[in-house]
Amino acid sequence: MNKLRETLREAIVEAGVKDGMTISFHHHLRNGDYVLNMVLEEIAALGIHDLTVNASSIFDVHEPIIEHLKNKVVTGLEVNYMGGKVGRAITEGIMEKPVIFRSHGGRAGDMENGSSKVDVAFIAAPCADDMGNLSGKYGPSACGSMGYAFSDAMYADKVVAVTDHLEAYPLADVSIPEGYVDMVVCVDKIGEASRIVSGTTRITKDPVGLRIAYLAAQVVKHSGYLKDGFSFQTGAGGASLAVAKYVEEMMEKEHIQGSFCMGGITGYLVSMMKKGLFKTILDVQCFDMEAIESIRDNANHQEISATRYASPQAKSCAVDSLDVVILGATQVDLDFNVNVHTDSQGYIMGGSGGHCDTAAGSKLSIVVAPLIRARLPLIVDEVLCKSTPGETVDVIVTQRGIAVNPKRTELKELLVKAGLPVKEIKELKEIAEAITGVPQQVKPEGRVVAKVLYRDGVEIDTIKSVK
Amino acid sequence: MNKLRETLREAIVEAGVKDGMTISFHHHLRNGDYVLNMVLEEIAALGIHDLTVNASSIFDVHEPIIEHLKNKVVTGLEVNYMGGKVGRAITEGIMEKPVIFRSHGGRAGDMENGSSKVDVAFIAAPCADDMGNLSGKYGPSACGSMGYAFSDAMYADKVVAVTDHLEAYPLADVSIPEGYVDMVVCVDKIGEASRIVSGTTRITKDPVGLRIAYLAAQVVKHSGYLKDGFSFQTGAGGASLAVAKYVEEMMEKEHIQGSFCMGGITGYLVSMMKKGLFKTILDVQCFDMEAIESIRDNANHQEISATRYASPQAKSCAVDSLDVVILGATQVDLDFNVNVHTDSQGYIMGGSGGHCDTAAGSKLSIVVAPLIRARLPLIVDEVLCKSTPGETVDVIVTQRGIAVNPKRTELKELLVKAGLPVKEIKELKEIAEAITGVPQQVKPEGRVVAKVLYRDGVEIDTIKSVK
Repeated sequence: MNKLRETLREAIVEAGVKDGMTISFHHHLRNGDYVLNMVLEEIAALGIHDLTVNASSIFDVHEPIIEHLKNKVVTGLEVNYMGGKVGRAITEGIMEKPVIFRSHGGRAGDMENGSSKVDVAFIAAPCADDMGNLSGKYGPSACGSMGYAFSDAMYADKVVAVTDHLEAYPLADVSIPEGYVDMVVCVDKIGEASRIVSGTTRITKDPVGLRIAYLAAQVVKHSGYLKDGFSFQTGAGGASLAVAKYVEEMMEKEHIQGSFCMGGITGYLVSMMKKGLFKTILDVQCFDMEAIESIRDNANHQEISATRYASPQAKSCAVDSLDVVILGATQVDLDFNVNVHTDSQGYIMGGSGGHCDTAAGSKLSIVVAPLIRARLPLIVDEVLCKSTPGETVDVIVTQRGIAVNPKRTELKELLVKAGLPVKEIKELKEIAEAITGVPQQVKPEGRVVAKVLYRDGVEIDTIKSVK
Repeated sequence: MNKLRETLREAIVEAGVKDGMTISFHHHLRNGDYVLNMVLEEIAALGIHDLTVNASSIFDVHEPIIEHLKNKVVTGLEVNYMGGKVGRAITEGIMEKPVIFRSHGGRAGDMENGSSKVDVAFIAAPCADDMGNLSGKYGPSACGSMGYAFSDAMYADKVVAVTDHLEAYPLADVSIPEGYVDMVVCVDKIGEASRIVSGTTRITKDPVGLRIAYLAAQVVKHSGYLKDGFSFQTGAGGASLAVAKYVEEMMEKEHIQGSFCMGGITGYLVSMMKKGLFKTILDVQCFDMEAIESIRDNANHQEISATRYASPQAKSCAVDSLDVVILGATQVDLDFNVNVHTDSQGYIMGGSGGHCDTAAGSKLSIVVAPLIRARLPLIVDEVLCKSTPGETVDVIVTQRGIAVNPKRTELKELLVKAGLPVKEIKELKEIAEAITGVPQQVKPEGRVVAKVLYRDGVEIDTIKSVK
């Protein structure tokens, strides 16, 4: 048995990629990924059309897909997140079929229960052996965790691993085992290492961001969850990391020993684990080099699959045991619904990722965002896209005050008692509008360009084209 | 969500164990296992009948199952291996329904393709957290690898973990993740640590055994497979370990750097890895304390599932990349078919385990056995049970000579050229019979008490009752 194929084209042909099929990709190489573009280019050259691309995320580096959408090489798109460049083209109506948005947990879950069927998965593998044992931890394009690729490997009919670093059989540290992999193709480069780690991973210096982070940390402190065994997820943005910094200071001061931290992992969380503030890191995606080094070298830094992270089809997942998550928002409405899919003009520039998964699973979900952005208030009557339902969102923290979901009366009492600036969400809206004026309500009324599925696979909202 | 249950009985009831169902067990606690007996005792007390027990192996410690067979609590039995005590009862016809024998790879494969359906899996877990993340590496009943339990966890409808060592969530080093586990029960003891490690794991001192081992090592040497990248599996018996010792000496002398060793892992193989003779160990089952320590502490000592080890349903498995395997036999026939299920009287006292899997996958399968045992010749006209088909067996090594499968003409030439005592298999039979006399052919003619399925799930032989 020989799984090595000379060229990507050979593997595509042998995998039987045909008009109308669904192919999948994972996004751990982020904005440095070459594989999605490479595969689509070959497929286009082979004259194949009408494919659905299920990619855990689409970044700006994937802009060439716009051409394939125009040429009907790709006519279906399913993602958990979409960057602004492709997002704008979609929002302007480049596709006939609506994009399907899922969450990170929902994507894995829908593959598990068979509602999202993949014909051929292409797995960018920073390290592989010739029988298809794969790892993201080694090689020139190392990305660390390959958490989102596990479900693709397990449930696709055919699996093609694309690597630029072949090691002798057997790989000594395996993430995805050979039993799931049909073919291995070795190419020059699967990604641009310097762009694999992308986005802000430094603590904000902006005073508004720091104020929000400080208040969010105060919410954590007075919520009652900050005690031994504490578990925590925060994003990689500058404000999220600032929350981590304040939480760290409190944990150190009060000698709190947390259990785990989670999410897109940065060096900041790694350093908290190293200090003993958390026993372990559950890592579904690495956001910087320190995280990649740590998952390779530190046994307490565990790679987890999207299923283990957040699948609602699993018998349980890590988000079910999460105490506190810090989340972002482009818009929040009076019912605490959160939009992370579009900007305030209705253009797609994001997606749920793990947003609705962690909001649903955690004991305390805190949305942090500036009250006003680009002269527009954060809080609106109705979000343009309901990414995360308000019933799973506990607290909104802005620099001008904190709104607590009316469902959480005890939590509200605790925060008021602690002297935090708790306000009604309507008040926060009015404060913003007193500064910006009441903005003209934008409401795209074009045809449906995207459907947003909640983590259980049920449609929760649609996104309409902007004319 | 709370997965902890106070008692085993509560978990059995909640899992919905009912008359006619199939329940499963894994055997990493070997002859020290308490869990199978404990569960069956509760089930019997609950008045449940007509169960099928699918246990990866049954040891003598599981003798109480005989009572449950008599009482029709258990009416079906599916195993990869069965010790002599229960084996005798089966051979004497205690069950109406034939026992189903599979191989280690075949059991996993049949679960994967749905032909072997388990309703409730009971997983003995030396270490667990309250959400069902499981490991075999820690705790007072540590068994190391839990390789055979993965398929039970993944494919059973309900999964109950039984542990005697609960750790705080989340377990930092997880073998079976929580997403597969419904309930966790903490009991006093899941096993007798001193008997978990059982069987001979020391090199034989018997001169006949040493002679056989020496010859087998010479076969390895002159086969052409002993070179850089060499991969090797040997059992835990004294003669198998003696082969390892001779192979070790040759590798050291010739500075050969092997790739992996595999199988039931002992301290001997661990020490070979530590010396750099093998890059990594692929471990589906630990046979002694050194192996358990090593899989816990050494990153190059990898736990693998039965699927990754040997499943013919996987897109590939480790046995497909194995160079040389050393195997045992109770009988070999003139067509090189091997019996490891019964003794020469026809009594069940074993099973395939990974025998036919590794024979089929490896480039060179060597059966080592004394030419005469208990005054009976090893080589017979027809084996009482065809455990491993002769077309996958390359060489038979006895103290009096070596027989090479006629299919392997090149190999035979190499061994003859090296001056090894190569003989026709018929000659070996005659040499033995010259000493023992031609034994009376035993051939049980009772009803079928067991069916032997080959690794692909197809029946390869049956075992009949001894009157």
